[in-house]
Amino acid sequence: MSLNPQRTVDELKALRELTGDENGAQRVAFTNQWLEARAFLKKKLLELPVTTITDPAGNLWATLKGESERELLIGGHLDSVPNGGWLDGSLNTLAGLEVLRRLAEQYGGNPPVTVRLVDWADEEGARFGRSLYGSSAASGHLDVHELAQLRDKDGVSLGEALMKVGVLLADAPQAREQLKNAAAYLELHIEQGPVLEGMQLPLGAVLGTFGVERHTITFHGQAAHSGSTPMNVRRDAFRCAGQFSQEIYTIAERHGGVCTIGSCKTLPGIVTSVVETCEITLDQRNLDAGKLAAMWQDAQDAAQKFAGEGGCTVEFGHLWNIEPIPFDAELIEAADAAILDVTPQSHRLPSGPLHDAAEVARAGVPTVMLFVQSLKGISHNKIEDTEEEHLRLSVQALDKLTDKAMDWIGKR
Amino acid sequence: MSLNPQRTVDELKALRELTGDENGAQRVAFTNQWLEARAFLKKKLLELPVTTITDPAGNLWATLKGESERELLIGGHLDSVPNGGWLDGSLNTLAGLEVLRRLAEQYGGNPPVTVRLVDWADEEGARFGRSLYGSSAASGHLDVHELAQLRDKDGVSLGEALMKVGVLLADAPQAREQLKNAAAYLELHIEQGPVLEGMQLPLGAVLGTFGVERHTITFHGQAAHSGSTPMNVRRDAFRCAGQFSQEIYTIAERHGGVCTIGSCKTLPGIVTSVVETCEITLDQRNLDAGKLAAMWQDAQDAAQKFAGEGGCTVEFGHLWNIEPIPFDAELIEAADAAILDVTPQSHRLPSGPLHDAAEVARAGVPTVMLFVQSLKGISHNKIEDTEEEHLRLSVQALDKLTDKAMDWIGKR
Repeated sequence: MSLNPQRTVDELKALRELTGDENGAQRVAFTNQWLEARAFLKKKLLELPVTTITDPAGNLWATLKGESERELLIGGHLDSVPNGGWLDGSLNTLAGLEVLRRLAEQYGGNPPVTVRLVDWADEEGARFGRSLYGSSAASGHLDVHELAQLRDKDGVSLGEALMKVGVLLADAPQAREQLKNAAAYLELHIEQGPVLEGMQLPLGAVLGTFGVERHTITFHGQAAHSGSTPMNVRRDAFRCAGQFSQEIYTIAERHGGVCTIGSCKTLPGIVTSVVETCEITLDQRNLDAGKLAAMWQDAQDAAQKFAGEGGCTVEFGHLWNIEPIPFDAELIEAADAAILDVTPQSHRLPSGPLHDAAEVARAGVPTVMLFVQSLKGISHNKIEDTEEEHLRLSVQALDKLTDKAMDWIGKR
Repeated sequence: MSLNPQRTVDELKALRELTGDENGAQRVAFTNQWLEARAFLKKKLLELPVTTITDPAGNLWATLKGESERELLIGGHLDSVPNGGWLDGSLNTLAGLEVLRRLAEQYGGNPPVTVRLVDWADEEGARFGRSLYGSSAASGHLDVHELAQLRDKDGVSLGEALMKVGVLLADAPQAREQLKNAAAYLELHIEQGPVLEGMQLPLGAVLGTFGVERHTITFHGQAAHSGSTPMNVRRDAFRCAGQFSQEIYTIAERHGGVCTIGSCKTLPGIVTSVVETCEITLDQRNLDAGKLAAMWQDAQDAAQKFAGEGGCTVEFGHLWNIEPIPFDAELIEAADAAILDVTPQSHRLPSGPLHDAAEVARAGVPTVMLFVQSLKGISHNKIEDTEEEHLRLSVQALDKLTDKAMDWIGKR
């Protein structure tokens, strides 16, 4: 067949040239550079026997009509964070484009099932702070009233930004219509972590996305003069947070998840006073809902214990949470098999970051993702990178998985 | 004799009424409220056979001429922090006033040695960030060029603020002249810490002021996604700071000093990223210069160790330091004896906070301080307080110490 994985690498470089600068990718959703990236994709799609629409949320769909109306979806997102990487999201979309080309050529424009490439709008949420915008509209998890409140740092509302690209926010939930015939969803993505690199493997099959529990933890002690207060009578809120910073490693190990303290604020925060108030953020993730709940319970217990031992008190604030979203067991098998078609070893791993695939899975569509190795685990940064050989392998694996998924849909 | 300790308590209350509000004392140096406090003191001094001058730095001196030109100095400061306490500094000054009254009555205006009460200007440094202004001018440790740079939050320079109360900053070092006949310096102060309260003692003799080493410690790790980065490959700068927050308790115990982390800043400081940069402040104090140096060395070693173990690096920044200033051994004996004249038990303790007494001692004047118990160790706050019975005892002890110090001067 005519699959040309090098073409995907070349197109990723051309897109980087078109929509990046010396600080990295600048394809923030709903900006001119994002529109340029979309135009780049649309031009490529013009050469294929596909019909292209933009749904009411602003997602771009290219449909290769097949014998069956049941649809195999392949997704990605061209939008990036500011100063982002060249692969995050774009690899997914452009690899899907290459698979569409192969299918169009092989089946003369009429594959066994309908295949659709979707370029989701605003996966990153970099500008308005709400990620997975387009896919959550399609999955039915978008709250228009909540989103109407969002503004960027210049005070522009999400609604105004959408209006400028021809989308009416109030219409966005109608995107749900797009999933009505969906039989499976595939997404290739860079890992954005160090696991595959550490194992020296190019590719992995993704088990699902972690559930997340995100809270603030605030220790309250007592401000006291740094010179006149003996150590043994101090009620040091920072010391409690410091003990807790070690404990999260134990909690993560116990339950097989991850825990992160990302921010610490101290009050009064002056050099001559013991810390009275110390607020930290805690982000906990696990693929198993029960283990995630246990991690959060352990965190609360540990914080209470350290506070009690240190003469402090502690309070907890809820920031955000989402349940773990497991991918389809049979499609995970198929993903593993597709990887083994192109490289000697596969590996199954959960996804710490969320992806559009999670929204599609939440909507009840059987879903799986492929991860390709990230160098140094770095993403959302101009130095984000992947070996070109691995990029080519990832396009091949997605292509193999597409065939297996079409077979799987046909047998159901 | 006519010593009337209750009068001091009453005058402290009157001063509070005159220069405080519902948020506490508002006698910030060089403000109108501070001038009112000074006027309050000057009116009281008018009733005594003393001569009063303001020195070129703005310190107020009241001199009760004695048979000898050698001088016993009693000091305090009427200035407060904003929203300060009623006793911090004012007790010292007004107790000294009461002792002057007793001496004037007993000796008919001619005690064996000259006794001077000094009200130091701007001990707190609350407005311009430089404490011990007036006493450092007298001790020869004031750098006019450095102070000329200081501005308050409204952009007013220290020089401008001084000009408004009749002081020319460039003249301030001439205050040094005032110590030329000084033979001893006494200062009573609230403890501002919990030691005496914990021992249920009203009074203590102060051994000297702690030396201080004040630094920033900055751990550098690597930002990494909170979801995709396994715990065992993280380079978590906050974890290093957290380990260090426990270690300072061990270091302080090992060397008999105090260590305080007062502030913690995290970068990027977002909920979804491992902390890349964590900057903390470290304030270390010890009465012994060698032990203070060892404490700072131990802190650096521990920080290096935690950074190395955590895949991070660490750098240190110097903020400020001052050597320990021990008080006069014989005057400490006299202070102990004076305390035992008025209460059954004394206790010797170092001062964590700095005081004007430290500057006078640095200038080579034999110096001692008395501490009176603080309730809950709280100061620089409207709830700062001391039992009235203890305040009266403190005035009596300062009075006894004055006699002993005069005898001591006479015998040298």
